[in-house]
Amino acid sequence: MSLGKFVSFEGTEGVGKTTAINGLCERLQAQGIEYVRTREPGGSPFAEQLRELLLDTRTQINDDTELLLMFAARSDHLAQVIMPALSAGKWVICDRFIDSTVAYQGYGRGFGNADMLHKIEALIAGFVPRLPDITLWLDLPVAEGMQRAGKRSVADRFEQQQLDFFDRVYQGFEAQQQAQPQRIQRIDAQGEVEQVADRIWQSVSQQL
Amino acid sequence: MSLGKFVSFEGTEGVGKTTAINGLCERLQAQGIEYVRTREPGGSPFAEQLRELLLDTRTQINDDTELLLMFAARSDHLAQVIMPALSAGKWVICDRFIDSTVAYQGYGRGFGNADMLHKIEALIAGFVPRLPDITLWLDLPVAEGMQRAGKRSVADRFEQQQLDFFDRVYQGFEAQQQAQPQRIQRIDAQGEVEQVADRIWQSVSQQL
Ligand SMILES: Nc1ncnc2c1ncn2[C@@H]1O[C@H](COP(=O)(O)OP(=O)(O)OP(=O)(O)O)[C@@H](O)[C@H]1O
Ligand SMILES: Nc1ncnc2c1ncn2[C@@H]1O[C@H](COP(=O)(O)OP(=O)(O)OP(=O)(O)O)[C@@H](O)[C@H]1O
Ligand SMILES: [Mg+2]
Ligand SMILES: [Mg+2]
Repeated sequence: MSLGKFVSFEGTEGVGKTTAINGLCERLQAQGIEYVRTREPGGSPFAEQLRELLLDTRTQINDDTELLLMFAARSDHLAQVIMPALSAGKWVICDRFIDSTVAYQGYGRGFGNADMLHKIEALIAGFVPRLPDITLWLDLPVAEGMQRAGKRSVADRFEQQQLDFFDRVYQGFEAQQQAQPQRIQRIDAQGEVEQVADRIWQSVSQQL
Repeated sequence: MSLGKFVSFEGTEGVGKTTAINGLCERLQAQGIEYVRTREPGGSPFAEQLRELLLDTRTQINDDTELLLMFAARSDHLAQVIMPALSAGKWVICDRFIDSTVAYQGYGRGFGNADMLHKIEALIAGFVPRLPDITLWLDLPVAEGMQRAGKRSVADRFEQQQLDFFDRVYQGFEAQQQAQPQRIQRIDAQGEVEQVADRIWQSVSQQL
């Protein structure tokens, strides 16, 4: 039994993460590799409960509370799903993981302020027993992802604000990739679905 | 307007925290001191929702998840209730706070292992903007508290723990008191309700 690999997919909205995971899973299956496909936030029953609680409540939640809930969900997801699968020799393919937290909570919400990033780093150090072996950052201009996801291109004031937010998120992924180039592979997400899938397989198959 | 004080009550199950807080609040009221009475886990609408999850006997979560949920609840409680009250010059009287986390999650669950205690310290440092001005640790042998509480029938997820669990929790409070004797006052919780109330008032009235 080969050792399972932990693979995460990252990127801004609509860049093609879910589509790319479909493609990777097909190829893993063709290779006879056992895998567990999962996502964040959520991925385990209790973590999905937390996700719902977050969405259902009308209480305004501050950034710290949101961050801690993310890590509570992640901790359960790791304990219930990710670690057991890896221990059983299976691959784990995860749609978003820690880099989305850095990008969204750290850069998007936190404006990349050092205090917020430091808190996130401390939570990763304390509560994430295993990082992905490989992270595929699907790099596509924010506006193109929005278009793929069917978002309108004419921006009013609110949408403009959202666009600023996603620009900061993009910068977060970029900074993470530069800080950890070994783990995080930048994948050009432009072009046809099959082209992107090929690029990803080129990276991932080196792990075989 | 006098500056509000932040007072927390701590101790194992049934030692008389809630009863003692009743007594303190009566005396504060008699002095014309404005206060907010609250409790943990919970104390704000969103934190109370998390409390329900935490105390639900059907909830099966690992220690890290529990710890992170506690701090998510606390972060909301601080932002929504504690900090605004203190800023408005009111006192805050809180039934359990960070020392219960150290005692229950650190000593009770974590067996006082350095790794768990370190995680708790890091969470306090990162996510608790203000510590209590004074913490009253109601010191009573574990078994006596259990007896006092014996009148209540339904046990929550924490109350279902074994006695040696609560012995470790007691040791946690003791260790905290020794480590931070300035903030944490040991109150002998034996004797009549009025006697205990007098001892507490002696400590608290020094803050006036
Ligand atoms: N390479 C591609 N070229 C064109 N369209 C694509 C490509 N990859 C995916 N799409 C389409 O773009 C849309 C968004 O793709 P997908 O849902 O995979 O993105 P995502 O990153 O998972 O989005 P989200 O962030 O919302 O989860 C879908 O309609 C999908 O079919
Ligand atoms: N000094 C005292 N002497 C005798 N009984 C007491 C005393 N103080 C409180 N009690 C009784 O002991 C029981 C537990 O008290 P209380 O609910 O105040 O404890 P608690 O510390 O808040 O418990 P819990 O940890 O469950 O919240 C109650 O029935 C209360 O009336
Ligand atoms: Mg998707
Ligand atoms: Mg009580």
